[in-house]
Amino acid sequence: MSTLIFRGNDRIQTLSPQDRGLMYGDGLFETLRASRGDLPWWRAHWRRLQSGAGRLGLTLPDEGMIHAAAQELLDARTQVLKIVLTRGESGRGYLPVAGPATCILSTHPLPPPMAEPLRLHWCTTPIAQQPVLAGMKHLNRLENVLARGECADSGYAEGLMCDCDGHVVCATAANVFVYAGGQWHTPELSQSGIAGIAREHLLSMLEDVRIGTLTRAGMEAADAVFLCNAVRGIMEVRRIGSVPINGHAALDALQQRFLDTHPFFADE
Amino acid sequence: MSTLIFRGNDRIQTLSPQDRGLMYGDGLFETLRASRGDLPWWRAHWRRLQSGAGRLGLTLPDEGMIHAAAQELLDARTQVLKIVLTRGESGRGYLPVAGPATCILSTHPLPPPMAEPLRLHWCTTPIAQQPVLAGMKHLNRLENVLARGECADSGYAEGLMCDCDGHVVCATAANVFVYAGGQWHTPELSQSGIAGIAREHLLSMLEDVRIGTLTRAGMEAADAVFLCNAVRGIMEVRRIGSVPINGHAALDALQQRFLDTHPFFADE
Repeated sequence: MSTLIFRGNDRIQTLSPQDRGLMYGDGLFETLRASRGDLPWWRAHWRRLQSGAGRLGLTLPDEGMIHAAAQELLDARTQVLKIVLTRGESGRGYLPVAGPATCILSTHPLPPPMAEPLRLHWCTTPIAQQPVLAGMKHLNRLENVLARGECADSGYAEGLMCDCDGHVVCATAANVFVYAGGQWHTPELSQSGIAGIAREHLLSMLEDVRIGTLTRAGMEAADAVFLCNAVRGIMEVRRIGSVPINGHAALDALQQRFLDTHPFFADE
Repeated sequence: MSTLIFRGNDRIQTLSPQDRGLMYGDGLFETLRASRGDLPWWRAHWRRLQSGAGRLGLTLPDEGMIHAAAQELLDARTQVLKIVLTRGESGRGYLPVAGPATCILSTHPLPPPMAEPLRLHWCTTPIAQQPVLAGMKHLNRLENVLARGECADSGYAEGLMCDCDGHVVCATAANVFVYAGGQWHTPELSQSGIAGIAREHLLSMLEDVRIGTLTRAGMEAADAVFLCNAVRGIMEVRRIGSVPINGHAALDALQQRFLDTHPFFADE
């Protein structure tokens, strides 16, 4: 793993233990799939970072400089580039002060493929409803950590998280799509969850998808279910808890179109 | 400001940019008032850290060692000691892995007194309901950061935060108590908020206090209102938004008892 750290547009050597990213989770992150030394979805990830930075009032460093630094970290392997952007260092106290952001770039091995057939756990850790933060890939991720630990304790690689009203929002590290009644559905994310980049690309590919509420019963009755994220692409789900999901030709067709449009997800 | 960093029980020099405290807010913190080289409320803060570490599955370093290191950082001034405890370093991914925690100790100047009379803003940033994290002083504090920014933008030093049901939970960096109908009231914290150490001490001093739900209207109709935290002690509130709070002899008496019992809050 290689790492580069920036304070504003200046490269620095070490992270301050008073960085607000550590103190309060006061920042954002992005996780990109890198392939053949390139970052095919760079623009979409940077746009989301800009959007989150706007909502939180963070100052973004120069895109071209960060992109060049990211390229510098990559080699030809298929791997993961992570970008962490924080409000930078400040004194003690929540008050957000204007100043240069901290930006940390690091490369990581591509995770091994999910064990197939993919089975999902129903997480008991709920996901909180917080409209002010919903959709953002911010650094306050204790819920995801606890839910992921719960999956591992139960022998699952992934699990579904519901809000306190019992609506399905997401997996611990992926968005979720369901095919039922001849139609694609995915949860709306105005109250919680992360608006994923793979989700965004899929929404632009699917002519007819309902963005709304998904119930547990609705998921279990679905013809096909998949998870998606920007590192792994589409992951077909074959079982949720004890309930088998049969699959559907619509998902096979979508997977093929997705790989045709974004062939770097086939690189190993 | 001085800082010491530990990995488990070993002192280290720099914080890893892959620390889970930064990546996910996967940790806890404590903020202690230090006086005359001592930490009078150490035991209560350490107990809360133990409790949070139990809930999150973090491994605490040795208490005696951390206490000795904290004493080493202090001088005779009244100041603030901050303890940050994280799950330590791990690879990318939410999965919490067992390993040595990171513990960061730092000293900070005592903040200047709140401007008097203290006026509170009604924050529009809600506080999320999340029973799995409620009460803990964890590192996921973006809500507090945004709410505090909102107070500053509106010309207030502090503000009250409500949950999505409209119940008052806390100030951005303090708990809240209300005197009304001849009785003390404070919000219950099973869904959100931090169970503060000053709040805990006050609950043990007050023979008769109702822990329940507080509404905005109930607060505005109160005879007396105060905020409290472990750095500043009791802070009397004299106005909430545009509504004056008259004060009450019960608060004067409580403040006197509090200072008699915990005289280090009178040190400057």
